[in-house]
Amino acid sequence: MDRILSNQNPRVKAWAKLATKKGRQENRTYLLDGWHLVEEAIKVKAKFHAVMATETQMAEHLPDVPHGVPAFEISEEVAKHIAGTNSPQGIFAEISLPEKTFDPKYVHDGAWLLLDNIQDPGNVGTLVRTADAAGFKGVVLGAGTADAYSPKVVRAMQGSQFHLEVLNGDLDEWTDALISNDLPVYGSLLNEEAKSYHDVQPATQFGLIVGNEGNGMSAALADKTTANLYIPIQGRAESLNVAIAGGILMFTLALGN
Amino acid sequence: MDRILSNQNPRVKAWAKLATKKGRQENRTYLLDGWHLVEEAIKVKAKFHAVMATETQMAEHLPDVPHGVPAFEISEEVAKHIAGTNSPQGIFAEISLPEKTFDPKYVHDGAWLLLDNIQDPGNVGTLVRTADAAGFKGVVLGAGTADAYSPKVVRAMQGSQFHLEVLNGDLDEWTDALISNDLPVYGSLLNEEAKSYHDVQPATQFGLIVGNEGNGMSAALADKTTANLYIPIQGRAESLNVAIAGGILMFTLALGN
Repeated sequence: MDRILSNQNPRVKAWAKLATKKGRQENRTYLLDGWHLVEEAIKVKAKFHAVMATETQMAEHLPDVPHGVPAFEISEEVAKHIAGTNSPQGIFAEISLPEKTFDPKYVHDGAWLLLDNIQDPGNVGTLVRTADAAGFKGVVLGAGTADAYSPKVVRAMQGSQFHLEVLNGDLDEWTDALISNDLPVYGSLLNEEAKSYHDVQPATQFGLIVGNEGNGMSAALADKTTANLYIPIQGRAESLNVAIAGGILMFTLALGN
Repeated sequence: MDRILSNQNPRVKAWAKLATKKGRQENRTYLLDGWHLVEEAIKVKAKFHAVMATETQMAEHLPDVPHGVPAFEISEEVAKHIAGTNSPQGIFAEISLPEKTFDPKYVHDGAWLLLDNIQDPGNVGTLVRTADAAGFKGVVLGAGTADAYSPKVVRAMQGSQFHLEVLNGDLDEWTDALISNDLPVYGSLLNEEAKSYHDVQPATQFGLIVGNEGNGMSAALADKTTANLYIPIQGRAESLNVAIAGGILMFTLALGN
């Protein structure tokens, strides 16, 4: 097995570049940090390009790495450099970005979460993880939304990208397509004149749009929806964090929760 | 008005120290970053020690600063240094830490959120903000929980510390006191054998405990509760983020949401 001890090694430089969207687009790969995520990727037979681990992590996990995947032993320093954090667990994988194209015209069932311009990576990742837990079929990342495969989003998704569809898409197109396929699409607004979320019957098939942290969802999109929902606020907070609002709506609207 | 242009100025050094718990404990003050929070503090008549702002922010907001509060004009560099971030808005206040002591024996009503060893400042702040929105009377921060007045928690609370009680406390003592005052106390567990959260009647008076990100709430505390609740997971996510779980439980259990 190759041992890599320097941050100047060309492979290390290439892995570090995967922290940027440009680097991921050029390589069509992204990084998983930590055994929990690497193990999930093995379970779903993701396409591996490499596994990199410190000596102790390699000793522990090499037997579980699929046959034929190039494995590299790395120093603690290299592990920190790749992770961009000070205390990584010390095991990583480079895997392929999903290449799926997905036409919403063919979506006839399931619950779908649509993210309109959600900028904080932690919010995006937490929303994907919560959609998974609520039994959603997929999450569509619209314009302005943080990239699903940035390190912070990947950390917050905790492997949920392997459990449900995570797609980029045009939310106008998705909203039109879902509605013409008889799935209601609910927007969410911070507006007491919108419909209370309690007044919607839980269902198995629908779309739910959540919007930007500061400005909410786009007005043009709100005009297209079946209805726009509001979570009444009892106290004096002006609003809810978007991931919290999304979590409450998903667990209330999706039948079975 | 004094103008402060150097990070070496003793006042600037003192403000920067408020980013640490030790600094806040010694001074008995903490910092607010941004006009939104400063304005909330003015509204609730918090005890101000100083307002610091860049030239443009001072020009805009000085008329609203309460009479008698020392005001300091600071450079953009000083603003960045105090904020610990690269793009602060440029207005800050130093205000007193709340000095309240609070004996749970005298708590006879309201909904109370108890945080057991919640380590991530963003989670703590978001939980306080969500408790405010759900109409809770207070949040009690137990052992191991991130300090309520660290910069990241203050940012995530978005001023909710001015709207409900935010207290440090011993959660064993709180749990015993609430139960002996006839308020049920619900724990939360990631355990399908716990009680489904749907099986609890919404109420106006109760305690709700949420626990550590990785390990959940302490077993000793779970033994003391009236009941422990579980949020059933439909998909393949292993768990929910603690702030999301707390948000769903608060909005479901508190009557009126």
